[in-house]
Amino acid sequence: MRADGLVERLPVVGIDADAREALNLLAGSRLPGLVIADAAGRPLWIVPASQLLRFLLPCYVQDAPSLARVLPESMCDRMADRLRGKTVRALIPDNAARPAVVRHDDTIVEVAAVMSRLHCPLAAVMRDDAMIGVITASRLLQAALASPPDQPEP
Amino acid sequence: MRADGLVERLPVVGIDADAREALNLLAGSRLPGLVIADAAGRPLWIVPASQLLRFLLPCYVQDAPSLARVLPESMCDRMADRLRGKTVRALIPDNAARPAVVRHDDTIVEVAAVMSRLHCPLAAVMRDDAMIGVITASRLLQAALASPPDQPEP
Repeated sequence: MRADGLVERLPVVGIDADAREALNLLAGSRLPGLVIADAAGRPLWIVPASQLLRFLLPCYVQDAPSLARVLPESMCDRMADRLRGKTVRALIPDNAARPAVVRHDDTIVEVAAVMSRLHCPLAAVMRDDAMIGVITASRLLQAALASPPDQPEP
Repeated sequence: MRADGLVERLPVVGIDADAREALNLLAGSRLPGLVIADAAGRPLWIVPASQLLRFLLPCYVQDAPSLARVLPESMCDRMADRLRGKTVRALIPDNAARPAVVRHDDTIVEVAAVMSRLHCPLAAVMRDDAMIGVITASRLLQAALASPPDQPEP
């Protein structure tokens, strides 16, 4: 099986898009990360959902997570206010790694090797210079496990 | 909103369960990681799906990912054979971090602070000494964004 057999469509966002709208798209898709693209639609960054949560936290909670315990509930209901006026550019962590990128005709072993090395829950799939979608780690596991178990070695 | 409002059920696996069956459960659930529990059902490890892919790769591809390119396609179709005879214990990476664990009555800010700090796509939710399910980073984003946008500051 090749990469293009596993591709899922996803909402790609540009680096100057509104941050809250971008996270809404992600939350609606239930994908494990946000793909941020340049003006030509090529992937620049893939930010895992767990790292995006940080941008909803007050600075003092980012620095000292135990302070989250003393926040009043009304502030908890207003986490998304921290995104007001921000663009997607503000959602890129300082230590963000380059995205996992594979070709549409890569084998699933090649895709797994790239995602495993980068610890990335999503890989962007390219055909020529265009991104045609993403592959999630869980979809890849599903495909790898689809072969019948316990055949004798060839 | 509190943690228990965001809980999803998940298949929890024991450390001595069959590795292939455990990954099948994960792939079927489309969750972003595997929760490995002790005999009492308490979470020991949460391994992200991207790190589980490594265990489907031949050792020489783990060491030199570019070798994936020269593998014959027939080997690609037999990735899951590498799990034969292994238990879940073999799926715990050497450098695995302790799991993200939250209490059922933690606020979503507390949950986000824990997941963000540990870079974990899943948090186990405890009530007393029992795990009642997990919260995914994307479900948490969804909840945080559900508050109405652009209200004036109080």
